Amino acid sequence: MDLYGRDLLCTQDWAIEELEAVLELAVKMKRDRFSDRWTSILKHKTFLMFFYNPSVRTRQSFEAAATELGGHAQFLEPKSMRLKTATTAGETIEDAAKVMSRYGAGLGIRILEDKIPYYGAGQELLEEYARWADIPIISMAHDKFHPCQGLADVMGLREHMGDVRGKKLLLTWGSGALARSWSSVQEALLISSRLGMDVTVACPEGYDLDPWVIETTRTNCEVNGRTFDSTHDPVAGYEGADVVYSRNWVTSNAYVDGALQKQAEIEIAMQHTGWTCSADKMAKGNNPYFIHPMPVDRGNEVTDEVASGPRSIIVDIAENRLHVQKAIMALTMGST
Amino acid sequence: MDLYGRDLLCTQDWAIEELEAVLELAVKMKRDRFSDRWTSILKHKTFLMFFYNPSVRTRQSFEAAATELGGHAQFLEPKSMRLKTATTAGETIEDAAKVMSRYGAGLGIRILEDKIPYYGAGQELLEEYARWADIPIISMAHDKFHPCQGLADVMGLREHMGDVRGKKLLLTWGSGALARSWSSVQEALLISSRLGMDVTVACPEGYDLDPWVIETTRTNCEVNGRTFDSTHDPVAGYEGADVVYSRNWVTSNAYVDGALQKQAEIEIAMQHTGWTCSADKMAKGNNPYFIHPMPVDRGNEVTDEVASGPRSIIVDIAENRLHVQKAIMALTMGST
Amino acid sequence: MDLYGRDLLCTQDWAIEELEAVLELAVKMKRDRFSDRWTSILKHKTFLMFFYNPSVRTRQSFEAAATELGGHAQFLEPKSMRLKTATTAGETIEDAAKVMSRYGAGLGIRILEDKIPYYGAGQELLEEYARWADIPIISMAHDKFHPCQGLADVMGLREHMGDVRGKKLLLTWGSGALARSWSSVQEALLISSRLGMDVTVACPEGYDLDPWVIETTRTNCEVNGRTFDSTHDPVAGYEGADVVYSRNWVTSNAYVDGALQKQAEIEIAMQHTGWTCSADKMAKGNNPYFIHPMPVDRGNEVTDEVASGPRSIIVDIAENRLHVQKAIMALTMGST
Repeated sequence: MDLYGRDLLCTQDWAIEELEAVLELAVKMKRDRFSDRWTSILKHKTFLMFFYNPSVRTRQSFEAAATELGGHAQFLEPKSMRLKTATTAGETIEDAAKVMSRYGAGLGIRILEDKIPYYGAGQELLEEYARWADIPIISMAHDKFHPCQGLADVMGLREHMGDVRGKKLLLTWGSGALARSWSSVQEALLISSRLGMDVTVACPEGYDLDPWVIETTRTNCEVNGRTFDSTHDPVAGYEGADVVYSRNWVTSNAYVDGALQKQAEIEIAMQHTGWTCSADKMAKGNNPYFIHPMPVDRGNEVTDEVASGPRSIIVDIAENRLHVQKAIMALTMGST
Repeated sequence: MDLYGRDLLCTQDWAIEELEAVLELAVKMKRDRFSDRWTSILKHKTFLMFFYNPSVRTRQSFEAAATELGGHAQFLEPKSMRLKTATTAGETIEDAAKVMSRYGAGLGIRILEDKIPYYGAGQELLEEYARWADIPIISMAHDKFHPCQGLADVMGLREHMGDVRGKKLLLTWGSGALARSWSSVQEALLISSRLGMDVTVACPEGYDLDPWVIETTRTNCEVNGRTFDSTHDPVAGYEGADVVYSRNWVTSNAYVDGALQKQAEIEIAMQHTGWTCSADKMAKGNNPYFIHPMPVDRGNEVTDEVASGPRSIIVDIAENRLHVQKAIMALTMGST
Repeated sequence: MDLYGRDLLCTQDWAIEELEAVLELAVKMKRDRFSDRWTSILKHKTFLMFFYNPSVRTRQSFEAAATELGGHAQFLEPKSMRLKTATTAGETIEDAAKVMSRYGAGLGIRILEDKIPYYGAGQELLEEYARWADIPIISMAHDKFHPCQGLADVMGLREHMGDVRGKKLLLTWGSGALARSWSSVQEALLISSRLGMDVTVACPEGYDLDPWVIETTRTNCEVNGRTFDSTHDPVAGYEGADVVYSRNWVTSNAYVDGALQKQAEIEIAMQHTGWTCSADKMAKGNNPYFIHPMPVDRGNEVTDEVASGPRSIIVDIAENRLHVQKAIMALTMGST
């Protein structure tokens, strides 16, 4: 197996054994964080980070990852760079990507729902960079997927539960005056089903996710002999759950006239009450762990009691972002 | 003495011997700036810098400090990070601080007068971060205090004067169309009085500083057997001064309706003439040194003649920001 | 020859043998990019980058250069720093430059046409920094010159052509709804003529460049026994050209009332058609190479066919920015 030079736009693009190689290395890197084994992997090398959208954890964890591998991550905001995007004129991605391939060892890109004219445009942008760049393109979250979050999720679950095979994940829509991307939750569906979990998706009507993701998740479950369910009931899915992932996301009709209708989405979201993950609901599960990609909208997506409670592993998962990203960078960009 | 893990929000929170440990190490680090003794102290570690307010020297000196200790400082602007502050909704400090503790070795925060609804709100924000973070919180200047500036000030004075004990510091308000924070001048009062200086504060009526700071400065002076004076005369305080610190600051009533009244403060400040530190006034002192945390408002807070004159040590003090910050980071975050 | 401490505002300020020293080192650094010979040259040192204007390649290449030399480049945007410029009040350059000299090993400055009140103001700003700073001031492109681009250009030409002496460079104005700076093209005239090329400038009437640059280019050509020509014909200059450089630039009257008249410039530029570098025109030359400092305005300055064609060496030249900047930093700031 040789991951050198590989792009990572979605975990589903990689073979199971390739994902396992990342997870195995991430565990070692977490155990012995500043070991000499890792601190020269990107020595004097540059990882370019393109933030079309700002970020807290993604910025901090990728930049720290490069530092801990001996390299340096450049924080770049394309908004001041007159680059061509799905919606603006400027330098072509061909030109930008070819030159960046001369400067950097890899390129991370973040572009979320509010910077694109339609669902899928972020994915297309990353594919266009991947087409022209000679260096790995790593998604730092885009409209469709968030592979580093998905890998951090399952790394965290394994730390607390051991093997996740046969355990039940409930992914449930969460209340709130928000209009959040599908990227994290779709990645969670794909990778958890691939690693052998039973999966249930719960959401109000109108909140169906990408049909391709749902079909692929269903197939992943079938391949593993596991079950895939969906429900519009805010409580039923908790039954027997080993893991609960409560998170707001936008409706299937969020884009109109070339833009995300954020205010309209918030108004629709506010009409759906009863979708807060609470201790009462959690009690119906199998003493489930609570996970979330953060930032958490406390009081809406989940109560404080659950988010700060003993079964919440959100901070461990956030930490794992660092370790899986170090492993991904090491395997796709590292010397050896 | 073990400073590992300690927060630094104000020099008054630390024991004298702890401050002396910082100053002693800073002197060594300045003498032998790139010695192998220091360049691995933060090797591959990340110092997170949160700039709620922008900055020239603070940014440059903290980022260079991390580099010189072998680590890396991340420049983060919370304005694009949807974090909860004293005045805005968003992610809780609990969540942000817990995750940052997993990524970084320390967290510096800068939040000044115009980003807060009332005097003291910046201090509360730093205390909230300190409550939840497992890593040291270092003030990079907040509404009340600026401990790194205070330490750089006394390091500079000692370089030029030797022991400062028994020497007289005049802290005088300075003219100008400005509305500057109390942080630097209050820190100077606390640390200079603690190290045994006589202290005089001169300002127009209405410009009284934080009563707790004044009382603590008075007590510090008493403990050391020194004198503390205040005056509303723009000239009298120069008598016998060994050090003159001329700096604009806002009135005691600068906050109204949840915001600093910047324009009103500037108008009030403009009514007070005669508060420019000049060669004439300096001549009444004991051949005093001129100090200032910069940026200097030349022609208003001080004349060019004094600011660029032979007794001005402002650039040496600015350089010392680097050295004291390296020492603080080494002692609170460093490997040993 | 000792370049330690030298400023670089324009290649014409340096002796030929000094420029050759940069180019020779850059070639070695490109050949063996991460050799131990280079990676400690700026170890633990800070290069300060002041971007009055944003940038793609300049930012990436300077920051990567510092990383590859073992140091760190700080990305600083003076707009948030309340510094004095040609057009705004604030801290004096004297104060800023003196303090930065204490923190950094060198200072790069970028200030382009839209941030200044008249042509030459950017040059004056850099000279003012150079006057007060004790560390090298490196132009990262200013209104008049772009020395790193000029050096990267000739490094690229030599890679593809060998010795450039006696070869003909056509610098031609390029169409487009743009109002681009004179910096890159003026630097190209100066350095190519100095290294012994024949030079022809082609542009519409009204687009004359800085008379000093034209006169100096003419003299450089004479010294080398080469020819210097100019024409207002969009095709004639291609005759016999070994290198074609097609680029938009503003008219000689671009500044009115203390500001670049961008919209007016664009309107004037749009009246001049027929100035796109195309395969037809290129066919009149001596199988010429196509060069450009990027970003390329494809379809206007040059056709896609030429820009992406086999004789286009724009990406190699962009890469060379990294190598010449490493060489410049090593020679002017490096430990030895």
